[in-house]
Amino acid sequence: MTTAKRDTYTPETLLSVAVRVFNERGYDGTSMEHLSKAAGISKSSIYHHVSGKEELLRRAVSRALDGLFGILDEEHAREGSAAERLEHVVRRMVEVLLAELPYVTLLLRVRGNTGTERWALERRREFDHRVAALMKAAAAEGDVRGDVEPRLATRLVFGMINSIVEWYRPDGRGAGAREVADAVARLVFGGLRGDRTA
Amino acid sequence: MTTAKRDTYTPETLLSVAVRVFNERGYDGTSMEHLSKAAGISKSSIYHHVSGKEELLRRAVSRALDGLFGILDEEHAREGSAAERLEHVVRRMVEVLLAELPYVTLLLRVRGNTGTERWALERRREFDHRVAALMKAAAAEGDVRGDVEPRLATRLVFGMINSIVEWYRPDGRGAGAREVADAVARLVFGGLRGDRTA
Repeated sequence: MTTAKRDTYTPETLLSVAVRVFNERGYDGTSMEHLSKAAGISKSSIYHHVSGKEELLRRAVSRALDGLFGILDEEHAREGSAAERLEHVVRRMVEVLLAELPYVTLLLRVRGNTGTERWALERRREFDHRVAALMKAAAAEGDVRGDVEPRLATRLVFGMINSIVEWYRPDGRGAGAREVADAVARLVFGGLRGDRTA
Repeated sequence: MTTAKRDTYTPETLLSVAVRVFNERGYDGTSMEHLSKAAGISKSSIYHHVSGKEELLRRAVSRALDGLFGILDEEHAREGSAAERLEHVVRRMVEVLLAELPYVTLLLRVRGNTGTERWALERRREFDHRVAALMKAAAAEGDVRGDVEPRLATRLVFGMINSIVEWYRPDGRGAGAREVADAVARLVFGGLRGDRTA
């Protein structure tokens, strides 16, 4: 499974192994024994780096959440019309999801059985609300249709974006990250009918 | 959990209990013991109706698949331009998903560990291909934008529709089935910008 040597292990490589195992077996179904085997190091070596699997989960979902919340601090998410800011956020959400695919996949599968999972769900809801507020502002400014309730529109747009983790494989054979981000931005804002001359 | 009496049990009510338990515990994590407890009848009574949990799974996903494939046989899915047929299919997919919510939820969570699960995944792929072909035809007829690859557009549209199972609760407090179907049809075809005067 891995050829990493014990003495080259860092918290970073351990994290990437843990996220892979969490995504394969589910967080609840993963034991320290599984992590030890997948990483090729002893359980006590893992405890040298982290307090246990819940700390690995927290670090992993933090990486995904930091990527997502970071978008909201970007210049194009803070300046311009609400619709322009929303379009920037949607496009960047796809890019962050693809750049941090295993981490965002794990975040989206969190269910809420532990304190860390409930914290992650709470942060996800906070992010959703920030984007829903942007959607509402864009509708108020008349740049987004008013016949779909903003919270519902946000859910559906998030549904489209988040579904990418179910099928995207960064193997270079399918659509590239840029193509997927363009497709999502086009469909979300212009729909299938869109500007057919574009 | 249930107040159904043993002598009123039918294959139909057993199926609805099984689907609920499969969705709560996962199919792999459900034993005949769990089903027996949830249904309030003995395991041998369950075996009176079905050969085991795999038959219950097959019946449950068949109900979802029959609903979805049934759409393709409807008049509006067979007549008219490809774009009109596609719009009918998208709207009806939402309606079937909401009408058969637990069954479609289970279908979408199938992973492929048993023969029945692999069969269900194969049927899902077949349905996807049928809709992707309609998408391609609509693009060829010039009614759907040509700058998003049809297979990718189909995946993203399915992603939006299927994500509804993650949050929709038929409790009468949130959006109703009609509102959700309208919202999806509007966003999928017109996008957020859409016809702002609509």
